[in-house]
Amino acid sequence: MSPLLSGGCLRAVWARARDARLLVPHRGASGGPGCARDPPTGAGLLRGELDRFGGVSVRLGALDCLDAAAFQRALQASVQQWRSAGRVAAWLHVPILQSALIAPAAALGFRFHHAEADSATLTLWLGEGPSRLPGYATHQVGVAGAVFDENTGKILVVQDRNKSKNLWKLPGGLSEPGEDLGDTAVREVFEETGVRSEFRSLLSLRQQHRHPGAFGKSDMYLVCRLQPRSFAIRLCPHECLRGAWLDLATLAADAGATPITRRAARLLLYGHREGFDKVDLTADTLPAVHTGLLYKLYHRELPGRYKVPAGAE
Amino acid sequence: MSPLLSGGCLRAVWARARDARLLVPHRGASGGPGCARDPPTGAGLLRGELDRFGGVSVRLGALDCLDAAAFQRALQASVQQWRSAGRVAAWLHVPILQSALIAPAAALGFRFHHAEADSATLTLWLGEGPSRLPGYATHQVGVAGAVFDENTGKILVVQDRNKSKNLWKLPGGLSEPGEDLGDTAVREVFEETGVRSEFRSLLSLRQQHRHPGAFGKSDMYLVCRLQPRSFAIRLCPHECLRGAWLDLATLAADAGATPITRRAARLLLYGHREGFDKVDLTADTLPAVHTGLLYKLYHRELPGRYKVPAGAE
Repeated sequence: MSPLLSGGCLRAVWARARDARLLVPHRGASGGPGCARDPPTGAGLLRGELDRFGGVSVRLGALDCLDAAAFQRALQASVQQWRSAGRVAAWLHVPILQSALIAPAAALGFRFHHAEADSATLTLWLGEGPSRLPGYATHQVGVAGAVFDENTGKILVVQDRNKSKNLWKLPGGLSEPGEDLGDTAVREVFEETGVRSEFRSLLSLRQQHRHPGAFGKSDMYLVCRLQPRSFAIRLCPHECLRGAWLDLATLAADAGATPITRRAARLLLYGHREGFDKVDLTADTLPAVHTGLLYKLYHRELPGRYKVPAGAE
Repeated sequence: MSPLLSGGCLRAVWARARDARLLVPHRGASGGPGCARDPPTGAGLLRGELDRFGGVSVRLGALDCLDAAAFQRALQASVQQWRSAGRVAAWLHVPILQSALIAPAAALGFRFHHAEADSATLTLWLGEGPSRLPGYATHQVGVAGAVFDENTGKILVVQDRNKSKNLWKLPGGLSEPGEDLGDTAVREVFEETGVRSEFRSLLSLRQQHRHPGAFGKSDMYLVCRLQPRSFAIRLCPHECLRGAWLDLATLAADAGATPITRRAARLLLYGHREGFDKVDLTADTLPAVHTGLLYKLYHRELPGRYKVPAGAE
């Protein structure tokens, strides 16, 4: 087995190309306290894991005691060997406390792929032509709740604090990691207004790029139809200036509402008068083919004659 | 003006609290080549920019010549002052070649917010209670093209390379940064199959969390209805094993297709037989209220009686 081929999800260790002796002793492995002051200067190699796309990943340990110059030499020799072996990409996973090793890697052409909390991931494309490496998440997801009371014909709207224009809008906010969009709508409506509600359907989707509130990334904004379960408004003083139940038909034509709010109001008016099946995208839960993880799928409700019997999906 | 208050988008400079003398000379400012070897050890402060949410941002220059220990002392003193002044958060923007300054910041509690290409952003929450800082992008966006030929009743499908199961699926792939979802569908269909097409509508949306192909982030998968403009299939050999025009009704019941592909086929069958207005979400372009940037909005087409006259939107 080549030093570059290590099965499973091993923590990166350092090995000399021929005899697998550690290039830089791990903390505690040197017999004395602290780091070795004079790491070997031979051209060591980094041990990585191959992925099925022809890339190689190196995971640095949070407690490894690494010298930046020796690391750079080892990385340079490793990159050379990975290229010779036809690897198309190198991935470097760096714990935040090992960030002193990032600049040496950058000097060899590595760049940030992403970073979050305690860890950064850097990549270097080794294949031919431009990089074909997958990017990182490109969108934040915000969800608004259109809470409509069919009995009174009124809809719940708010005005944000800290805005230059005081326009009526639907309560809503950013999805938490791992949160289904309907749950985001219900949670945000409650946090901003104190109104409890239940998810009914997805009404619309907006895609907007270079979003100022998304660190330059794209924004996906979804509007859900919610059924109110309580009506008393208790505004969040940090986020909202005003909150109200407004007549739906009035809001649909109100210049004091944002364009997307008026549009959502018109969709709801259409649904309220002619049946919500005209505007709703309903949610279904299905298992992913390769992982078995469940996902939520939203589209127009299929009439029974286009559905398959339960279990035959 | 406090040393922490600097208008505009200034590059961070280092200033002593009282006399604005630089704590660490910039490269070239010391009169000699390279870095100062003995930076002043006094408790300097970092100069940052205030944002309207009560946070303060420090931008390190790519060429600043900074000593890690002096930086840590200055950052610690600055954090103390920001806390006293009631700042709720600190943001640290670090060029990749200055990554040696990340670990000293991490030792003071800073963590990665995000990183991309040549730059990392770290944050420290200074306010009360749990952090209320906005997260970074949480979703990758993939788009599939359902290219349906109304004349023959056939739909374009492919089988991926490198999958454990060879199932028919719609061609598609990840959105490039800043790309509208309809454009992604058309581009991916062409790259994978050589078939040219035009965007017609959005058919469905899937949200899936902890996606293995998304570095643990969430995945938003959108299916678009496309109109074919060419029919000859020239498969991308890197991505596709097979490609074919299959009968839509057959695909809708085909166990050799992924569940989401069968579902999309049934939606198309419904539309093909009873009118695509039954299943389509059509796209509209609107200007954002606060920035004027254009965005795309997708929802059921509104009948004329629910629309407003052009220009009155």
